[in-house]
Amino acid sequence: MQRILNDPDNIVDEMLEGFLKAHGDIVEKTGNKRVVKAKKIKADKVGVATGGGSGHKPAFIGYVGENMCDTAAVGEICSSPTAAAFLDSFREADQGKGVACLYGNYSGDNMNVKMAVKMAKREGITVKTVVANDDVASAPKDQPEKRRGVAGEIFMWKAGGAKAALGGTLDEVIAAAQKAIDQTRSVGIGLTPCTLPAVGHPNFEIKEGTMEVGIGHHGEPGIEVCPLESADQMAKRMVDIVIGDVPFEKGDEVAVLVSGLGATPVMELYVLYNEIEKLIGGRGIKIHRSYVGNYFTSLEMMGATLTVMKLDDELKELVDLPIETMGLTQI
Amino acid sequence: MQRILNDPDNIVDEMLEGFLKAHGDIVEKTGNKRVVKAKKIKADKVGVATGGGSGHKPAFIGYVGENMCDTAAVGEICSSPTAAAFLDSFREADQGKGVACLYGNYSGDNMNVKMAVKMAKREGITVKTVVANDDVASAPKDQPEKRRGVAGEIFMWKAGGAKAALGGTLDEVIAAAQKAIDQTRSVGIGLTPCTLPAVGHPNFEIKEGTMEVGIGHHGEPGIEVCPLESADQMAKRMVDIVIGDVPFEKGDEVAVLVSGLGATPVMELYVLYNEIEKLIGGRGIKIHRSYVGNYFTSLEMMGATLTVMKLDDELKELVDLPIETMGLTQI
Repeated sequence: MQRILNDPDNIVDEMLEGFLKAHGDIVEKTGNKRVVKAKKIKADKVGVATGGGSGHKPAFIGYVGENMCDTAAVGEICSSPTAAAFLDSFREADQGKGVACLYGNYSGDNMNVKMAVKMAKREGITVKTVVANDDVASAPKDQPEKRRGVAGEIFMWKAGGAKAALGGTLDEVIAAAQKAIDQTRSVGIGLTPCTLPAVGHPNFEIKEGTMEVGIGHHGEPGIEVCPLESADQMAKRMVDIVIGDVPFEKGDEVAVLVSGLGATPVMELYVLYNEIEKLIGGRGIKIHRSYVGNYFTSLEMMGATLTVMKLDDELKELVDLPIETMGLTQI
Repeated sequence: MQRILNDPDNIVDEMLEGFLKAHGDIVEKTGNKRVVKAKKIKADKVGVATGGGSGHKPAFIGYVGENMCDTAAVGEICSSPTAAAFLDSFREADQGKGVACLYGNYSGDNMNVKMAVKMAKREGITVKTVVANDDVASAPKDQPEKRRGVAGEIFMWKAGGAKAALGGTLDEVIAAAQKAIDQTRSVGIGLTPCTLPAVGHPNFEIKEGTMEVGIGHHGEPGIEVCPLESADQMAKRMVDIVIGDVPFEKGDEVAVLVSGLGATPVMELYVLYNEIEKLIGGRGIKIHRSYVGNYFTSLEMMGATLTVMKLDDELKELVDLPIETMGLTQI
């Protein structure tokens, strides 16, 4: 295992320490060492909290910052943060106007968020939630409650964070974040597995010469394992799956995000995006804004995800609002 | 080879096409398809050009943008751009006040830039150059002309680009960029090799359980191959090599950049930075600004580089100036 590590059991704490030092102008520590808080937060607004397992950088802490998430609870690698961490993240985010907790659909996160919401209520903090479920490959269209959240969470945070920054009420923030994720679909293609440092070997396999369509961020099985295809063929599969799932129509405007899974060279993401753009454009859909890079990763997995969000006037305004985070700074 | 590719011989063109589509607000194409130009360039200023081989994203085109590089010439993977591409990049960057060409010390780049500078002169375009040589491991201290340029180029572009944006003359821009690189030192540690798509297998080897200290961005041999160490031990080696080379002293202020080489998970870069920060701080040196991420890569190589620049008042002002590029946006 060719990795940069000390004791694998301390990796999350050491990473957080380094992260806070490196980005002291954007984030700050809190009383709970597993909760990170934005340094600049507009006064008198609804709080926006998130959280999730580690190993997906920039997610989740990399999206804490002005006009995006106020706090993030941090879990072990590929594990949910504790209920106590979520609760502390709500306490830190609350300014008396309630907190929107925007997170991904995983059983551990669901359980711990629910507990934390109840505990917060007893303290007089109102927390409402939106659960991201943008991963088309993780369950059929008629079972959206079973679908996982993946890179579409970034659009959910962007919309919710912007709505809160613009002075929205808790219900308005929740509605904006819910609309964002309802209009967002993602799919991933995995080319290699990844290795958790504490385990030391991959916990799933992708055979050389094959690819896994619909793979999850933790190696959850996808729709199909098939022979490795060209970038253009991968693009076609991804666009067909994503655009086929929500009623994206000719004349729509969308935001597109192509994220590497960690180890795929960024130049290959541009090769992929080049064809994705042609295919989406060929359907008469206009790309309003595009993001290409490592925005939501799985350690050193190879592969990529495609995320598309259908925009209306409100979502366009929210996506365009400037933000400053480690993962994405937008002027 | 688990990669996202069409024809490996077209990868650079396809990547550029995708890049220009994805970042149409920051960059634009030119008459030469191997030259990229910033969309927003302050009028009536000295031009800032760069260029280099592909496979190092965000370098080089990812540092084209307002207040940084105006143009970049693009080479094949790990190969210099042609003299014709450099010449066209000078033509595009020139506003009648001359062009600063800021590039790295590699034989192909040196040869092609020199030819292009001569050709530009015949057209009445004055081009002066700064050649980055920040890689401590690539030659002894008394042979700086043999040292390669690596991630320190980012600080050279930042300083030169900012000086030009602030209205500096060509000589002032050259002096600022030269000072930046003179005060900058880097070292890399490689953990895995990388594979050029057209070749299909790694062109050098790093054995499992070993690491190569001082490796170059193209797998050039380093100082030493030794057993894989802990993150803290790697940090100590890197700080000793870098801080030992220029007379960094107690009380100095520095900018620090820790870059992944492509496939190392970003969380591990923070673990590394956590110790680097302690070691630099322990020497009584103050970190004014830090960057941690994938800023200068080698396809899917694993490992990291450390770059430190000693600051004076001028360099501090130049480093702090806001920029908007694909590789780095600073408010």
